[in-house]
Amino acid sequence: MRVTAKQLAEKAGVSQATVSLVLHGKPGVSEKVRRQVLALAEEMGLEPHTSTPASNGKNLQLVIYKRHGKVMADLPFFEQLTQGVAGAAAELGYHLSISYFYGNQPIREQIQSLASQNCAGVILLATEMHTEDVTPFSELNLPLVILDNSFPALNYDAISIDNMLGAWRAVHYLIECGHTRIGYLHSSVEIRNFRERYSGYLSACRSLPEDAAVDSARRIIPVSPSSEGAAADMAKYLDSEQLLPTAFFADNDRIAAGCCATLLKYGYRIPENISIIGFDDSSISEVLNPPLTTMRVQKQRMGALAVERLHTLICTAPPERVHISIAPEVLVRQSVLIRAPRTPNKKRRI
Amino acid sequence: MRVTAKQLAEKAGVSQATVSLVLHGKPGVSEKVRRQVLALAEEMGLEPHTSTPASNGKNLQLVIYKRHGKVMADLPFFEQLTQGVAGAAAELGYHLSISYFYGNQPIREQIQSLASQNCAGVILLATEMHTEDVTPFSELNLPLVILDNSFPALNYDAISIDNMLGAWRAVHYLIECGHTRIGYLHSSVEIRNFRERYSGYLSACRSLPEDAAVDSARRIIPVSPSSEGAAADMAKYLDSEQLLPTAFFADNDRIAAGCCATLLKYGYRIPENISIIGFDDSSISEVLNPPLTTMRVQKQRMGALAVERLHTLICTAPPERVHISIAPEVLVRQSVLIRAPRTPNKKRRI
Repeated sequence: MRVTAKQLAEKAGVSQATVSLVLHGKPGVSEKVRRQVLALAEEMGLEPHTSTPASNGKNLQLVIYKRHGKVMADLPFFEQLTQGVAGAAAELGYHLSISYFYGNQPIREQIQSLASQNCAGVILLATEMHTEDVTPFSELNLPLVILDNSFPALNYDAISIDNMLGAWRAVHYLIECGHTRIGYLHSSVEIRNFRERYSGYLSACRSLPEDAAVDSARRIIPVSPSSEGAAADMAKYLDSEQLLPTAFFADNDRIAAGCCATLLKYGYRIPENISIIGFDDSSISEVLNPPLTTMRVQKQRMGALAVERLHTLICTAPPERVHISIAPEVLVRQSVLIRAPRTPNKKRRI
Repeated sequence: MRVTAKQLAEKAGVSQATVSLVLHGKPGVSEKVRRQVLALAEEMGLEPHTSTPASNGKNLQLVIYKRHGKVMADLPFFEQLTQGVAGAAAELGYHLSISYFYGNQPIREQIQSLASQNCAGVILLATEMHTEDVTPFSELNLPLVILDNSFPALNYDAISIDNMLGAWRAVHYLIECGHTRIGYLHSSVEIRNFRERYSGYLSACRSLPEDAAVDSARRIIPVSPSSEGAAADMAKYLDSEQLLPTAFFADNDRIAAGCCATLLKYGYRIPENISIIGFDDSSISEVLNPPLTTMRVQKQRMGALAVERLHTLICTAPPERVHISIAPEVLVRQSVLIRAPRTPNKKRRI
């Protein structure tokens, strides 16, 4: 049986964190305790992690799961996440393998093939996954971190965007710029990220004056989460709607891009006639005309945080499960008109 | 001007994470890169952190902020948080000072007194704080981590309980035990923790059969967040209500304890006549009769995570802001009756 840091800590009469610091060569432990722990570790057959994990044959697996691929078609977004994972894995001395899993193929076979590889931990890029898709991964019996999603019914660490906060900040920014009739271009394909942005939109709308807040739910326009689909859905909306909002919040930049194209085609000027704010700061947002104001997400750091947390799980097996959510920030470009700026009622809380 | 890890990384042509690993003596960097970075660090006057921070005169401040003290009267809970902070600070080699701030005293003076101390970073125990209470702390211009709260309008890292998840799991547990009429003993003093548990309660109730779900909002009973106050509020409720729920979810263990006392006084047996689940796993929950089923929160680890994140902010100044929320777990004791167990509709999502 493998000796754990916990057992070592108990035997040494120190905390698990102290053991972890010693085994990882970190500062913050007295020389006396350091020597005691190292001696006991040697005695118990537990090796310090001072050599790089790779030299001990440590591999990480990044599993990219495509249920339908409709959301994951946003290649630049996922490329940056993956780069963040790969970069942090390399810096921590892990060898990273990437596997693609497909929702339409038998999951057990795919997991067995994963289990056959010698691997210290798994990062699951779970954007399109549902709870029942993740459940079979428990068979692997390996440290596992969920990336870009989270599952309340399961007990895994997760790293994701703070979507509710991001949407709240986006809509608050529109309110601060003086907008009160704020529409929401909401993805018709349901994933957790978009559901949470929905909550953030509704929450922020509560800061609006009473009459404007009341009908915010009426201003939610379902659109396809692809540029082409969103463009077509926007055309249908413009054909039927009389009184447009003065500003839109879009679930992501691809939706914003598609809707902008249709708005321009219908003769609207952005931002003079209508403002729009996206989400993701994807590469498309910069090259749009006008350049799109959007929510910046540190995508590479998100990937890196997943690896850093997995590294902690592998090395110290902490007792707690955490959800680390990364805060999006408004990236001001030129697609939002500043009308009469006002201060939203900050006492109303998210 | 102080040289930052970021500037060093740029000059060395490596990532900030690599610089951090080298300066902290962590594994995962080739010997060649390590030597290059160390040489450049010396040249630029940046010291590696291989000696303990304390020996460099590094101090952390834990600020315990009491706006009214109504919630923070739960001493054991906050004692454990504080122990977690103190333990992790010591292990990372920091000297920890604790300051008490009071909502009824001028904040600027309190902050000036804090600024006069030589301090590398601040942990703000913000349970009772509002956004406007936190704003003045930006004057300190120091790395700062919010503990036990979070503020969407401000840009700080935060460590808190995943309250929505915890409440969702508590109510789901009651549903799995066969309860469908589930009441909610909800704190009448409003803080973020309780607001989020409120959302989790409503979200979990959506897994109930249609008719039971519809009137869950009717079963929310406002009670004082102290044992004595909750006991009195429960008596009022029992005097007026005809059809009781079969189970209660309580916002915290103190509320549960107070309400249990009144229920027993009125002749109800727990869990035979009525079930109850608390939140916090506070010391009182264990000694109640019957012992209280509750949501376990790794309070010490919460405090430790705040210090670990603050340490990262101090050492590597990462570009992202994160919210780390710690997942509560059901701790089964004897206050919940297992009726006809059923599987909640897992397809309904939080």
